[in-house]
Amino acid sequence: MIETKKKSLAEDRFFGPDPQQREIAASLFRGIADLPLICPHGHVNPAIFIDPNYSFGSPVDLLIIPDHYIFRMLYSQGIALEKLGIVCQEGEMQSEQDHRKIWQIFVDHFHLFRGTPSSIWLDYELRMIFGIEQELTTDTAQTIYDEIIGKLATPEFQPRTLYKRFNIEVLCTTDGVDDPLEAHQVLSSSDWNVRILPTFRPDQVIDIVSKNWKTNLEALEKTSGIDIHNYVSFINALENRRVYFKSLGAVATDHATQSPYTEELTAQESETIFQRALHGKVMPEDAIRFTGHMLMEMAKMSVEDGLVMQLHTGALRDHNTVLFERYGHDIGADIPVQTEFTSNLRPLLKKYGNNTKLTLILFTLDETCYARELAPLAGHYPVIKLGPPWWFHDSLNGMKRYFEQVVETAGIYNTVGFNDDTRAYLSIPARHDMWRRASTNWLAGLVVRKIIDMDNAERMAQELAYKLAKRSYRLEIPQGG
Amino acid sequence: MIETKKKSLAEDRFFGPDPQQREIAASLFRGIADLPLICPHGHVNPAIFIDPNYSFGSPVDLLIIPDHYIFRMLYSQGIALEKLGIVCQEGEMQSEQDHRKIWQIFVDHFHLFRGTPSSIWLDYELRMIFGIEQELTTDTAQTIYDEIIGKLATPEFQPRTLYKRFNIEVLCTTDGVDDPLEAHQVLSSSDWNVRILPTFRPDQVIDIVSKNWKTNLEALEKTSGIDIHNYVSFINALENRRVYFKSLGAVATDHATQSPYTEELTAQESETIFQRALHGKVMPEDAIRFTGHMLMEMAKMSVEDGLVMQLHTGALRDHNTVLFERYGHDIGADIPVQTEFTSNLRPLLKKYGNNTKLTLILFTLDETCYARELAPLAGHYPVIKLGPPWWFHDSLNGMKRYFEQVVETAGIYNTVGFNDDTRAYLSIPARHDMWRRASTNWLAGLVVRKIIDMDNAERMAQELAYKLAKRSYRLEIPQGG
Amino acid sequence: MIETKKKSLAEDRFFGPDPQQREIAASLFRGIADLPLICPHGHVNPAIFIDPNYSFGSPVDLLIIPDHYIFRMLYSQGIALEKLGIVCQEGEMQSEQDHRKIWQIFVDHFHLFRGTPSSIWLDYELRMIFGIEQELTTDTAQTIYDEIIGKLATPEFQPRTLYKRFNIEVLCTTDGVDDPLEAHQVLSSSDWNVRILPTFRPDQVIDIVSKNWKTNLEALEKTSGIDIHNYVSFINALENRRVYFKSLGAVATDHATQSPYTEELTAQESETIFQRALHGKVMPEDAIRFTGHMLMEMAKMSVEDGLVMQLHTGALRDHNTVLFERYGHDIGADIPVQTEFTSNLRPLLKKYGNNTKLTLILFTLDETCYARELAPLAGHYPVIKLGPPWWFHDSLNGMKRYFEQVVETAGIYNTVGFNDDTRAYLSIPARHDMWRRASTNWLAGLVVRKIIDMDNAERMAQELAYKLAKRSYRLEIPQGG
Repeated sequence: MIETKKKSLAEDRFFGPDPQQREIAASLFRGIADLPLICPHGHVNPAIFIDPNYSFGSPVDLLIIPDHYIFRMLYSQGIALEKLGIVCQEGEMQSEQDHRKIWQIFVDHFHLFRGTPSSIWLDYELRMIFGIEQELTTDTAQTIYDEIIGKLATPEFQPRTLYKRFNIEVLCTTDGVDDPLEAHQVLSSSDWNVRILPTFRPDQVIDIVSKNWKTNLEALEKTSGIDIHNYVSFINALENRRVYFKSLGAVATDHATQSPYTEELTAQESETIFQRALHGKVMPEDAIRFTGHMLMEMAKMSVEDGLVMQLHTGALRDHNTVLFERYGHDIGADIPVQTEFTSNLRPLLKKYGNNTKLTLILFTLDETCYARELAPLAGHYPVIKLGPPWWFHDSLNGMKRYFEQVVETAGIYNTVGFNDDTRAYLSIPARHDMWRRASTNWLAGLVVRKIIDMDNAERMAQELAYKLAKRSYRLEIPQGG
Repeated sequence: MIETKKKSLAEDRFFGPDPQQREIAASLFRGIADLPLICPHGHVNPAIFIDPNYSFGSPVDLLIIPDHYIFRMLYSQGIALEKLGIVCQEGEMQSEQDHRKIWQIFVDHFHLFRGTPSSIWLDYELRMIFGIEQELTTDTAQTIYDEIIGKLATPEFQPRTLYKRFNIEVLCTTDGVDDPLEAHQVLSSSDWNVRILPTFRPDQVIDIVSKNWKTNLEALEKTSGIDIHNYVSFINALENRRVYFKSLGAVATDHATQSPYTEELTAQESETIFQRALHGKVMPEDAIRFTGHMLMEMAKMSVEDGLVMQLHTGALRDHNTVLFERYGHDIGADIPVQTEFTSNLRPLLKKYGNNTKLTLILFTLDETCYARELAPLAGHYPVIKLGPPWWFHDSLNGMKRYFEQVVETAGIYNTVGFNDDTRAYLSIPARHDMWRRASTNWLAGLVVRKIIDMDNAERMAQELAYKLAKRSYRLEIPQGG
Repeated sequence: MIETKKKSLAEDRFFGPDPQQREIAASLFRGIADLPLICPHGHVNPAIFIDPNYSFGSPVDLLIIPDHYIFRMLYSQGIALEKLGIVCQEGEMQSEQDHRKIWQIFVDHFHLFRGTPSSIWLDYELRMIFGIEQELTTDTAQTIYDEIIGKLATPEFQPRTLYKRFNIEVLCTTDGVDDPLEAHQVLSSSDWNVRILPTFRPDQVIDIVSKNWKTNLEALEKTSGIDIHNYVSFINALENRRVYFKSLGAVATDHATQSPYTEELTAQESETIFQRALHGKVMPEDAIRFTGHMLMEMAKMSVEDGLVMQLHTGALRDHNTVLFERYGHDIGADIPVQTEFTSNLRPLLKKYGNNTKLTLILFTLDETCYARELAPLAGHYPVIKLGPPWWFHDSLNGMKRYFEQVVETAGIYNTVGFNDDTRAYLSIPARHDMWRRASTNWLAGLVVRKIIDMDNAERMAQELAYKLAKRSYRLEIPQGG
């Protein structure tokens, strides 16, 4: 056997460096470490919870192939996606089938991730979830691969068992407007008493220049049972689906647009643009105007049905045209752009900004907006709350910048606590752990500098770890209540 | 009686967290803590100093109703402005009259402000100015209300007495171009020997698309005694008022525009646009061009009369249209926008940027400009100096970011020290205290990392607390000198 | 003799403030402090190495007149450039000839630089290179001037001797496309066995609206021996020069444009625009389009010849028109502007972004791009690597922000280590010292917070100090290899 270093995660990791701050942070962290996880926004596949014999596959199926953080970094260093088992759409190139080989490539390049959240999440998963004690090195790669395989085969690694072990209180998924929500139906009528809730995401039928828009519209027609021949019937179909999502416990909608542009079209204008889209004759400005208008329609529906509205903006999707044509979406090539909220959101806020029935949660990939636009907006408008640091900023420094740039103007009560926003089910505890450590360390910094006292810090730690998420997403009322 | 915690402000608050840095910061702070306050830019009403029986009203009149930092945050959490005693213009809705009730709402929600400058300022005011020892809680709210009422009724809380107690050396107000400056006249001829000086602010007659522009112009005509029928007479009237402001000790002008755009119009163009404005026929680009031109005119006049020119840009005013229509300006809904200085200021700098008779002080709400544009501009052009962190950035983190992003390129000598920029007279010492602590803590960080030595740190602390403000605003020459 | 403080540079300068972090940083630093310097991008004049009797001139010739960091700051405080010995183009104004007087002005104003990199670099040069022990003050200025004069006259201060003393392993210069590279020819055939390599910089013939474009084109014709009468012959001439630069060891090209805009023109379009430029009839959009197209041509040539492509964008050059007309370029008045990479680089990346034969190194003056655009781009595209903090950001805080905003998304392996980017030969060790201290201090912060372990930190320190630069610039293969 190879001699290897035993790994253990330090109890006070991510705190400090000042010893007094570290001690206060550790104390605050202990007070919240065992709180249940509220997961109000993410991308876990709910089907994994209804198959009693669900298998995560190999370590590569679990940890590499679905993780764009991982394969984007390896690709940036010249490793072809095929060598990582990523399958291209046309199948014109053979992707690696030997998962042990892929795992070895990954481990041999693990130094690339040092200092990134990916290495923090993986360290946590290996040590805390799989109980691996050896350090992950070129020499230990295959032994650890075996160890993971072994663990995954045990009942302890069934998704439902992990759900309890992870101490998840509620888990919201993200689901297309045409999704029949079969898994959610099964879960809602099962005697496994957990809250796994759908989230209504209609992007695919709102982006009228998307290649698949017509197909998506047909799927919406089918699932809603409404014949969509004009704008009014389109709206009816969306309303129909919102009712259905709500009936299965949905508390929120989610919208991803490149820009937070909003504009209210007249009934005539919406109809005209919609008809042009139906006939494949979209004009240059139509898509941005229609999307901007649909955000206002979504806000209106949220005022009516109480679904919390989430807005994720600022990514230029599929930036790498060559890879997009070969592999499709989500290949690690979505690149952020500058984002402007103050003017873009004004039409929506003029109409709904003072209506306390609405909750609008804003996410950004452009951190320059935190102190300049988002905190001032959230610190004034009753409807606006700020989502946590997102995607590239879901990191220790990202969280630090968020706290430092948002709270002085908006306070913590205009934020919504944490979202893990992950499709990697096993990374959920790691991500909440990082947030809870980052937030208690930030609070400890305020305590040690006498900006707040310990009482306040303890209360704020509870809010950031648990209460804000639950309250902002209106999860306090039990399902069916 | 209720048992409550005794509050006291820690001597070393806001320093650290490193103990060595904290100790050095405390030492530097002690060296400047007793320096007089230079207040070269703010919004205190000078009339409070000439009424011998002036009353600040209730604690709510003093601390809540005029403070947009306070009521914006409460509003953002769904508390109607009427419940906070804010009076709407039309009077169509009854605002709360019972100030004890308003105070209780405020105190019940004081946790919203934890981690914000508002809580720091209020803690200081209660403890250091009012000498309140109890912690402000739901239970102590009314007792503390009584205590404040009692203190406000004593001679110690007369504005003039506080002026001496606050150790203010000079206090500049901000005054509309048509202001007769009656209070300043009284003060300048009184035997109360203090420097309370007006500042010339002509925005109201420069923004030709403002609803009240014509009314404002008439007020300027009246106060200047000059019939304004064309651009030349408009300029004459402004010059006339500058002379008057200077005669009462003014050292500076102040200009607030959304963008720092500058452009020099020809005499013909200025006249044409001015005539269009007079006849209510303003064209789309007129307002931005005219404002840009007037900034150049103001720079020209400053070269001639020596008034320091301040430019505050980057707020989209009255963003919340609904509230604006109901309550008017300054309702907590001014939201920052991206700002560009490099190209926008170039025409002005081409003409006046090398003229050492001009001092142009730039403020921003867009912190991304600090390191990218403002520090390079101030580190080159003789006329440019940088104002301190402003508004949302007048905070501990705002100051830290300012020092870290500005000084490496511009040094501290191209900055102007601190502005409290407040209409809340009682918060002036709290604001200078925060700046002085933030600046000495930053300097201590340089000392402990051996970037500067203690001698230099002590000199720089003096500059930042006192000398830079006095020198930059040309306040070194005594009044009438 | 005047009593003065003895200066010495603290061993642990720039580390901390936390003592544990400081100790770890010091340990990491000791492990890399003696590594040779890789200088893959800079502006040292290679001619200084071939004149056996080269003289740096006076301390003012060496340290003030060529240093825009120094004279821009003095100018910003109202000191005329003539008083600093800067010579204007027209010679219409007499510049100061007495270098002792200039030195005294500089020293009398040295407090302006406290907290800036300039003071750090100068402290290092005086103490570590010249061995000056007295503190630089008004009183010691002339003594220290004498001491520097004395040292400069010794053989120890010959450029070649310093080269060895500085422990430089490779030094790349930056050279115009028409440069005959005479010094490089001499060096490459000399028996002084060092690597001083040219870098190909064609900006002067790419910017078709530059005043001197035609003259520059003629120089290119002459040096390439190719008659440039159309676009194709222009491209041939550039290719010809690249071959020549490579023959003298060049490993890279360098390109400075205001924006990173790229666009591929058709053969017809390039020819048309080129002809318009030849005939002095450039149309409004021609220059930006042609530059954008030439960046793509340069990428294409780099794919073919293996020269690493560097792109420096974001400065509005010669912002101060008055000074530019009087003194020309590089007078300290280049001011950064907002920069956008995501959309601007997309055409180039579409064509070459996945081609691992290309290395494209991006530099920015707009730090907001680090986390938002550059790290995501570098963390995905195989061709992109990020240059170190540049110009105004080549500072302790600039480096801290760079590490904190880049590494979590791109890792360190998509960066290229350090560039000193200086024309001030004597400042090279000071600049590498600052980078090495900043990087080990950052790594120590990761270690103390248990984000990485000491083994990883040591390896990363080696990479950042030495290996990344060598590998990214393809300097691992010995010259001629």
